[in-house]
Amino acid sequence: MNSQINVGIVGYGNLGRGVVAAINQTTDMELVSIFTRRSPESVSVEGTNAKVLHISEAEDYKNKIDVMILCGGSATDLPEQGPQFAQLFNTVDSFDTHAKIPEYFDSVDKAAKESGKTSIISVGWDPGLFSINRLMAEAILPVGETYTFWGKGVSQGHSDAIRRIEGVKGAVQYTVPIEEAVNKVRSGDNPELSTAEKHLRVCYVVAEEGYDQAKIEETIKTMPNYFADYITEVHFISEEELKANHSKLPHGGFVIRGGKTGDGNKQIIEFSLNLDSNPEFTSSVLVAYARAAYRLNTKGQAGAKSVFEVPPVYLSHKTAEELRRDLL
Amino acid sequence: MNSQINVGIVGYGNLGRGVVAAINQTTDMELVSIFTRRSPESVSVEGTNAKVLHISEAEDYKNKIDVMILCGGSATDLPEQGPQFAQLFNTVDSFDTHAKIPEYFDSVDKAAKESGKTSIISVGWDPGLFSINRLMAEAILPVGETYTFWGKGVSQGHSDAIRRIEGVKGAVQYTVPIEEAVNKVRSGDNPELSTAEKHLRVCYVVAEEGYDQAKIEETIKTMPNYFADYITEVHFISEEELKANHSKLPHGGFVIRGGKTGDGNKQIIEFSLNLDSNPEFTSSVLVAYARAAYRLNTKGQAGAKSVFEVPPVYLSHKTAEELRRDLL
Repeated sequence: MNSQINVGIVGYGNLGRGVVAAINQTTDMELVSIFTRRSPESVSVEGTNAKVLHISEAEDYKNKIDVMILCGGSATDLPEQGPQFAQLFNTVDSFDTHAKIPEYFDSVDKAAKESGKTSIISVGWDPGLFSINRLMAEAILPVGETYTFWGKGVSQGHSDAIRRIEGVKGAVQYTVPIEEAVNKVRSGDNPELSTAEKHLRVCYVVAEEGYDQAKIEETIKTMPNYFADYITEVHFISEEELKANHSKLPHGGFVIRGGKTGDGNKQIIEFSLNLDSNPEFTSSVLVAYARAAYRLNTKGQAGAKSVFEVPPVYLSHKTAEELRRDLL
Repeated sequence: MNSQINVGIVGYGNLGRGVVAAINQTTDMELVSIFTRRSPESVSVEGTNAKVLHISEAEDYKNKIDVMILCGGSATDLPEQGPQFAQLFNTVDSFDTHAKIPEYFDSVDKAAKESGKTSIISVGWDPGLFSINRLMAEAILPVGETYTFWGKGVSQGHSDAIRRIEGVKGAVQYTVPIEEAVNKVRSGDNPELSTAEKHLRVCYVVAEEGYDQAKIEETIKTMPNYFADYITEVHFISEEELKANHSKLPHGGFVIRGGKTGDGNKQIIEFSLNLDSNPEFTSSVLVAYARAAYRLNTKGQAGAKSVFEVPPVYLSHKTAEELRRDLL
């Protein structure tokens, strides 16, 4: 029914690799090219025959690519690439620096409106699917509280913070929802809970030889912002064990709203994710929203959008008629 | 920010009562009038000062009501009222006769396009929120299986079927998800499961004096379509106990998709509801989508829509800017 959607990727890290894999699972999308800032011949790509090109060649593909998936990071890549690519292509990205979303939205919106393209920003699961669930649950149950729990999953920021401590050779930090808090929320009690009261921090650390483990543990547990306010567990393990058991990037979490209707009837809405691979899942969400960006553009809806502005129908390759018949 | 949305209700049963309660929880909606087929003075309304009028007077409110919430049943009310009211008003309804949705959509669409109004059909949780989650999960994880479990909750159809048996004075039937099946699905094993392998049917029955309980139990358990294929539990209780413990209408359920990405990484998406009051929750969903119907209409999007075509942003009374800042 639908014509093929031609896709480009900007940036080939964990997310870019996940996008290649996700496009391979679609029937209506084709990967045209991967654009990189590195020397293209130095990038070895798996699972696709698409060309790897230098990012400076992207402009030549203006008429050959329907939507560009931006797989760069939020700190330095996207603030520049977002508006730049929106001048030439429909785009999707996973911009997740929460405090800067309004500013980023405006800069992408300006570029996309000038070019007549459509850019969906901050796509993924949080921001992304979790955000949609927060919005819908609050709109449906205006009297209530919404709770977001993250994990069990690897936090890169916290893992990096541990690795910067002297005497630490390697480390992985898991954010783990505290089950008692989750159950309290699920029961509809709407407790007051700080982020620290909702999450446990579990650290697996490889110490360099000759360093005092007790001192490292103390440094971790008293680190302000990252650990000091939390219940933190520190486990020292061998380098082999770290590699064998902690090299995957699982993640997930819950958005739970406890609301009340009528004379105090409790109504609980919950959305949860349990992910073996955080980057591959985020990539899968990006690919579905790439389809939506292209479709919205064919309907004349130029400019920046968040996931809030995207009707679910545009995420699927099926027609509205098929979806009403099969899934409604 | 937004001007007040003036709302009407057609039909004052469980759903209509829930809509009154849900409108009372909003800050941007006002209930103008309740329209009934009964004699208006015979209808006693709680929680609102809105007038109760005969349904024949609805047309006079064409310019005073922004959106009409149709609270009639799917069997006979909505097939007639859906297209009829779409000729005069923006509407939302909870039409849930699955097999007839395409036909119903077409008849409402024709009426709404002629009048330039917007009608969102089949709103609620299933069809409704569960449908959106089925669509999105399938679009994001094209390789995988989706499972819907219903319950624990009262099935009116099954309760009615028991009540029709000779010697039965009262009965309530709960549909209960089988925990072992839910856990198998949550683990990402993607088992093959029939509806009967996913749900248990638990019946609370009040027998008339002088009737053989064993015979009633046998009649229930062997009833084709309703019970014969299921594991069915029958508990005989007193009339007092039925009233005291089984007069509420709780419900809920899960939509779970187990998908695989990349080299076989399991990714689980789950949406679940745990509802003290099924009709009040459905009403709350209807009210949020009433806001969306009105908004879509102000954007010139006339015709019938399903929940699939509604961007989440229109469900909230907050502006897109506020939502991006606070919930994205």
